[in-house]
Amino acid sequence: MTVVTKELSFWTKGETDMVDITTEVQGELSDVKVKNGIVVLFIPGSTGGLITIEHEPGLVSDFKKAMEKMIPQGIEYAHNMRWHDGNGHSHIRASLIGSSLTVPFQHKKLLLGTWQQIALVDFDLHPRSRKVVMQIIGE
Amino acid sequence: MTVVTKELSFWTKGETDMVDITTEVQGELSDVKVKNGIVVLFIPGSTGGLITIEHEPGLVSDFKKAMEKMIPQGIEYAHNMRWHDGNGHSHIRASLIGSSLTVPFQHKKLLLGTWQQIALVDFDLHPRSRKVVMQIIGE
Amino acid sequence: MTVVTKELSFWTKGETDMVDITTEVQGELSDVKVKNGIVVLFIPGSTGGLITIEHEPGLVSDFKKAMEKMIPQGIEYAHNMRWHDGNGHSHIRASLIGSSLTVPFQHKKLLLGTWQQIALVDFDLHPRSRKVVMQIIGE
Repeated sequence: MTVVTKELSFWTKGETDMVDITTEVQGELSDVKVKNGIVVLFIPGSTGGLITIEHEPGLVSDFKKAMEKMIPQGIEYAHNMRWHDGNGHSHIRASLIGSSLTVPFQHKKLLLGTWQQIALVDFDLHPRSRKVVMQIIGE
Repeated sequence: MTVVTKELSFWTKGETDMVDITTEVQGELSDVKVKNGIVVLFIPGSTGGLITIEHEPGLVSDFKKAMEKMIPQGIEYAHNMRWHDGNGHSHIRASLIGSSLTVPFQHKKLLLGTWQQIALVDFDLHPRSRKVVMQIIGE
Repeated sequence: MTVVTKELSFWTKGETDMVDITTEVQGELSDVKVKNGIVVLFIPGSTGGLITIEHEPGLVSDFKKAMEKMIPQGIEYAHNMRWHDGNGHSHIRASLIGSSLTVPFQHKKLLLGTWQQIALVDFDLHPRSRKVVMQIIGE
């Protein structure tokens, strides 16, 4: 059994931008001498989330619209009143979606469905760089 | 430390059908020579979710109603416009609920609460068979 | 590789009360002879949730308001009709938010962002004691 910790970086555009990170995660996994186990992905920040989804333009747009309906940007947030950074909705969306995702792999291959990708969602306001911690635990 | 990967299958009815899979998960765990660790459950597909809940008919119905309120079936989805499969809401609900669930166990017993079950939720439109990957990591 | 299972207890006030448990989790981790790995946190109960968030009073209040908007307390729940305990909304909120959270650590330090905390959310109606299972898997 072994633990390998890596850090990935992605450029995101903000405002519920969704980036497919499957290729990068599978690529890092292929480089490590483990056969079976889990990949734990974690965002060290409070305005990003990790999901699995069929990453196609229709659903990318539908996800953003659903977030706006459930946790609108335009309403009043106590966070914004205190800190004046205008990203109260980003924080609440991120807490709801979650900062952690665990995906099992076997024979060095992520056990995703055919139409299922791993996506990083950036709920923050502006384009920025986003880190994702990737930890591989396996044998 | 050991890693054991299994695949479970369940028949689901679609439309936010919720199936209690606790007995199957605990059963598979009992068959494996590990004492303490985690069970990682993962749905290899983009229209299913995994939750813990008190699986009683009232909450099963309340959960479905809450999903319909938050992410309605009857509104327009860009996914449906592109692919004409009518399951845009299924994908968005699944992304929100999550495809991965990690439950710790000790002395070969899942550390669930007395009234807490593991449930598979099928958000897709029609009855189908659903796979759940179950990976046990422990000692 | 080693597995260590602990149980933490917290006093919560109910009604989407949010308690920052980061210090306790990091403290327990520091006491264990592992360097790198994951902390799996799990609530053995069906009316509590675990999230990461910037735990400041503004967002604590915003999160509660968002929950009330998405899954209101005052509407009819089949759970309440059957069991008359009035906490149908607590169960549904908990299922949505999730009972499990996995956080990687390196050099005995949780890999959280600077403004990111681990929070226990109690969706139940009344003040109570809440258990959190904490399992450390690492080397």
